[in-house]
Amino acid sequence: MKQARLERLVKAMEKANLKQILVSDPTSIFYLTGRWIHPGERLLALYIDVDGNNKLFINELFPVEEDLGVEKIWFKDTDDPIKLIVPHLDKASALGIDKNWPARFLLSLMEHNPVPKYVNGSNVVDRLRMIKDEEELELLRKASKINELAIDRLINEISPEFSEKEMKDKLLAIYKELGAEGLSFDPIVCYGANAADPHHVCDDSHVKEGDSVVVDIGCIKDSYCSDMTRTVFYKHVSDKHKEVYNIVLEANQKAIEIVKPGVRFCDVDLTARKIIEDAGYGKYFTHRTGHSIGIECHETGDVSSTNTDVLEPGMVFSVEPGIYLPGEMGVRIEDLIVVTEDGYENLNSYDKSLRVIE
Amino acid sequence: MKQARLERLVKAMEKANLKQILVSDPTSIFYLTGRWIHPGERLLALYIDVDGNNKLFINELFPVEEDLGVEKIWFKDTDDPIKLIVPHLDKASALGIDKNWPARFLLSLMEHNPVPKYVNGSNVVDRLRMIKDEEELELLRKASKINELAIDRLINEISPEFSEKEMKDKLLAIYKELGAEGLSFDPIVCYGANAADPHHVCDDSHVKEGDSVVVDIGCIKDSYCSDMTRTVFYKHVSDKHKEVYNIVLEANQKAIEIVKPGVRFCDVDLTARKIIEDAGYGKYFTHRTGHSIGIECHETGDVSSTNTDVLEPGMVFSVEPGIYLPGEMGVRIEDLIVVTEDGYENLNSYDKSLRVIE
Repeated sequence: MKQARLERLVKAMEKANLKQILVSDPTSIFYLTGRWIHPGERLLALYIDVDGNNKLFINELFPVEEDLGVEKIWFKDTDDPIKLIVPHLDKASALGIDKNWPARFLLSLMEHNPVPKYVNGSNVVDRLRMIKDEEELELLRKASKINELAIDRLINEISPEFSEKEMKDKLLAIYKELGAEGLSFDPIVCYGANAADPHHVCDDSHVKEGDSVVVDIGCIKDSYCSDMTRTVFYKHVSDKHKEVYNIVLEANQKAIEIVKPGVRFCDVDLTARKIIEDAGYGKYFTHRTGHSIGIECHETGDVSSTNTDVLEPGMVFSVEPGIYLPGEMGVRIEDLIVVTEDGYENLNSYDKSLRVIE
Repeated sequence: MKQARLERLVKAMEKANLKQILVSDPTSIFYLTGRWIHPGERLLALYIDVDGNNKLFINELFPVEEDLGVEKIWFKDTDDPIKLIVPHLDKASALGIDKNWPARFLLSLMEHNPVPKYVNGSNVVDRLRMIKDEEELELLRKASKINELAIDRLINEISPEFSEKEMKDKLLAIYKELGAEGLSFDPIVCYGANAADPHHVCDDSHVKEGDSVVVDIGCIKDSYCSDMTRTVFYKHVSDKHKEVYNIVLEANQKAIEIVKPGVRFCDVDLTARKIIEDAGYGKYFTHRTGHSIGIECHETGDVSSTNTDVLEPGMVFSVEPGIYLPGEMGVRIEDLIVVTEDGYENLNSYDKSLRVIE
């Protein structure tokens, strides 16, 4: 077990008045144990209680030989693992359940009626994971460094010769060469009107003169994610598009500049949003300003107008305002920001000034 | 809605004494509506009741414009979709819940206490999906046809020049060229001792003279899966390995030959298993004989010694016995089999006779 993380978890459980939880999300189990176990459809659960009676319920199919610092309770495919869990639960206390635990397990556990109450217990773990420790920050920096090298190479490949899909294939090869182990998300390279859809899926379109090109990419390195967006123009940029670009750039920069402990997530969102609204493009900024990131690309902690949580050192999130003009073009500029003791660290230093590709 | 499938579902619900279910698995929603909707972390639920008061609860982020033959209840990210579901439930009846519904939704629904009982409702849908209709069988044939072309090209590329990983890359290119839309599972191409692990992940190994080469691949075409395994030998096959191959081939063939309505899944498993056991290799056949397949590569309906369910026309499953000699080699031979009115149809006609690649 990662002892410091476990201790912080127990403190958080005590504060939330939650004596026992079943952690089943493989990402959270990795976070707490340092070990990836991908159970597929099988049950995998890390039982944590505030008195330290921790157990890992694990199928023999996943041979984890090393000592994880927690007792392993092994079972076979022919066993009912729920029956093995029941006797270990504290019958007098509510039980925290992982937000994603499949109903087939929860309904089966409930049939045994082992505890008086079931609550969503993910919040304590997920909020803990919002505060990255130094080991995690180093890994996030590493992943973003690869992403910076990759985006530079990819942007320099933009040409009418390659469709969006072909650009995606190029990116996969670049990531592989740079030692990334996977993608944080399905990468986006989109041209012109396609860029007006923030979630466009790469298709067979080719770039044309005057197109904005949105490149939103992220890789995984040593289990941590990167995520960055840059927008460039192909051969020509109209005055209107230049204006749109500079508004988004200002929104991105100003929102980042206010980041420090004590500021709220919604303040970051509103700073970006106000700049875009004041410029008259408010209704074309159709999504939240950002999301927290770590082992998963989207973690608990939205940078949105409704999230009044306060920033703390170690939090890491994207700042990615955009303007999307339907049928015409889109611009999005995204960096990953770490909250530090007295301000912020930007994991992305790749140039954001307006760029027209020849 | 796919009317015939919906009617079969309602009949199955009545038989199971289940008046209402919430279908949330995107594959089952695709099966019933013909439309893929990938909700990610958002709620998506198709409410079906035996009286036809069907509703689709869907987030506005997923614009499904076409008429699906079911009323859509739209919600926004700022709404609580659980509150929208509650008034539509029959307060006097148990509610079937999808086996994979995340606990965050189920616990939230339970707080409203809308029904007297919650049960795992997946069984009715999953068992329905076991019986493929003619449209599905045609799609499964199509996917397997692509797979046959792909395995032939791939086997002909085997050479010491290419590592297992490079062979996998070749396969991805072949599938793309043949018009497959994705993979049924992470493909396996493994050499020699690596073939002794039925779930080996392609690595940097290269093939050597005398190696058995297990090629286990599957693609998706028009949302339906294929899955086939062939084992060949590189340059040379020892008498012992020839014997092992012929035992596995006999197990595969004999198990297939008994397939017809009325036979049980376990009979198919035991036919293959007995041949391998009688030949003295029983302890080296370490997995079930097969799995059902359709929209997903692994569907409800194991071909295993414990599944006493009876085969019915329209069921489709793999028959894939194997022998794995640790540190030495492995052989697996797999076909997809359709149960017909009076026997079976093999979706894989690719040659299974012992083959030594030069």
